[in-house]
Amino acid sequence: MTKIINFSESRRSTDDALSDLQSLFADDLQKVEQAIAHHMQSAAALIPEIGDHLIGAGGKRLRPLLTLSAARLSGYAGQDHITMAAAVEYMHTATLLHDDVVDGSDMRRGKPTARNLWGNQASVLVGDFLLGQAFRMMVAAGSLPALGILSSAAAIIAEGEVMQLAAMNNAQISEDSYLDIIDAKTAALFAAAAETGGVIAGASTAEQKALTAYGRNLGIAFQLIDDALDYGSVNRVLGKNIGEDFAEGKVTLPVILAYHRGDAKARAFWEQAVAHPSADSGQLEHALELMAKTDALGDTIERARHYGDKAKDALGLFAADEVQKTLIRLVDFCIARAY
Amino acid sequence: MTKIINFSESRRSTDDALSDLQSLFADDLQKVEQAIAHHMQSAAALIPEIGDHLIGAGGKRLRPLLTLSAARLSGYAGQDHITMAAAVEYMHTATLLHDDVVDGSDMRRGKPTARNLWGNQASVLVGDFLLGQAFRMMVAAGSLPALGILSSAAAIIAEGEVMQLAAMNNAQISEDSYLDIIDAKTAALFAAAAETGGVIAGASTAEQKALTAYGRNLGIAFQLIDDALDYGSVNRVLGKNIGEDFAEGKVTLPVILAYHRGDAKARAFWEQAVAHPSADSGQLEHALELMAKTDALGDTIERARHYGDKAKDALGLFAADEVQKTLIRLVDFCIARAY
Repeated sequence: MTKIINFSESRRSTDDALSDLQSLFADDLQKVEQAIAHHMQSAAALIPEIGDHLIGAGGKRLRPLLTLSAARLSGYAGQDHITMAAAVEYMHTATLLHDDVVDGSDMRRGKPTARNLWGNQASVLVGDFLLGQAFRMMVAAGSLPALGILSSAAAIIAEGEVMQLAAMNNAQISEDSYLDIIDAKTAALFAAAAETGGVIAGASTAEQKALTAYGRNLGIAFQLIDDALDYGSVNRVLGKNIGEDFAEGKVTLPVILAYHRGDAKARAFWEQAVAHPSADSGQLEHALELMAKTDALGDTIERARHYGDKAKDALGLFAADEVQKTLIRLVDFCIARAY
Repeated sequence: MTKIINFSESRRSTDDALSDLQSLFADDLQKVEQAIAHHMQSAAALIPEIGDHLIGAGGKRLRPLLTLSAARLSGYAGQDHITMAAAVEYMHTATLLHDDVVDGSDMRRGKPTARNLWGNQASVLVGDFLLGQAFRMMVAAGSLPALGILSSAAAIIAEGEVMQLAAMNNAQISEDSYLDIIDAKTAALFAAAAETGGVIAGASTAEQKALTAYGRNLGIAFQLIDDALDYGSVNRVLGKNIGEDFAEGKVTLPVILAYHRGDAKARAFWEQAVAHPSADSGQLEHALELMAKTDALGDTIERARHYGDKAKDALGLFAADEVQKTLIRLVDFCIARAY
């Protein structure tokens, strides 16, 4: 369990870079919120209703912040970064709506999911609406290259989700295959959000690549931490039950590590647990024991650190101003987050 | 029942304008099919598998044909109409995938639906993939105005579906409200498909408006005929069971007319039938009797003719060449279709 303890230590030692980033972009974020609210209006009353529940209730706005930060780092002086940032949040929210349907999730961020409150049908359709609106907003911003980046991301995210669906009940999936999945389903939008900010600012190719690398590696680290948190966080703080992935038979990196490091008996347990998922607390207890024995959670966090380091190095191309420094701190914050 | 008989008569007297249009654009359509197959490739094996089932199995390609025809009418000489036409078919297919999930449909066009074969999860995600790919393809074609038209259509289609969901079990919905719904959920894509062809060809504003009007009114007529066919077609020919809408409690124009024209007893029947849908054949039989008594099916077809006439008139702006004449015949064909 040593590495788990390290995890909490690193949490204590990291300041709140996300809040600092939100403060740095307070004015822009306010405009993003306005754009988010504005494009949710519809003659179909369910749309603003579900929209309020999801987007209006606030959130970290991590992905929009990547767009805003990347535009600022690249010296952008226009207003299209606001629209693009709002569109990025719409894309993210559309995927959440559909993910909850696909996973059959009833809770997210400590609140009932839209599918729980309004049903799968409305969640599918409102997700489609948000995706359509996102592209409409991007068109309004008028950058074809940015549209290219985000439309590719939309297709890649769905591809990643399909790959995850296919791998769903297979404990034997390799770490590399799993990384391909999260690269697509999570990191692609982080990467596109950052790259888009650079593109609309007319950043150089090298800078665009650096921003993409930052977003992508941060996204992978973020997802791996999410995977670890699902087995090791405090319920009321994260707003997500521990063991949700386990109860759904979802194979994530902690399971992959515990499986590959386990003996024949442990592997049989994982194969069974993943093929016939159960919410039984005894089963989860045993899963946690096997993970502790194999350092699966601690090493998942170590893997996240590896990608986090790559993200930080990518920003070396940019001047060490406050935005750049906060983005670097953000990586540590995401890795250390337990909220 | 007189008007139903007229319906079959008009069917007999109308030649196959759709086949003629397909022949006129045989070369272009072949390229569209190639583009459709090409963009379905993915590392996630389920995607081409489901794609094959849906798109690769062929289909009328009605919407892509609108794009190709509109581009030709507007004197287009480039190649982007191929990409746009394929993207339009992707958008259409994405909505079919999601519709089947929302409606819980097991059969479409006489074949098992994707959700029936691969489940709701895969259908939601592959639909998302197709939507993302559609935008990617449009970006490749490089026309921001065309992207604006189709992204708006994507949002409007979803809005229409949400409105329909909200009106689902309400027999008292007005004809106008219903028209708003089908204008959004069906006609918006017909309109956008045609308009896009004009836009990439650099058609004048008046011509673009004419193409939009043609597509939109054809789309409304098409949907109304679909609604009528659900109560009056031959199962094996349409590949859709009679009474599917009825069994789902879906309120369409035939129901709205029969309800508004019915006496208190009939209205009570419709309210009950829509609130507590049933696949009972006796119930359907009674519904058909009430529709016959009120000429609900015949007048649904009359309403479709009204929109069809508007579609034909819109094309008056264009020279009466073979494409224009075939598009005009296509309206009659769609209204008379019972295949």
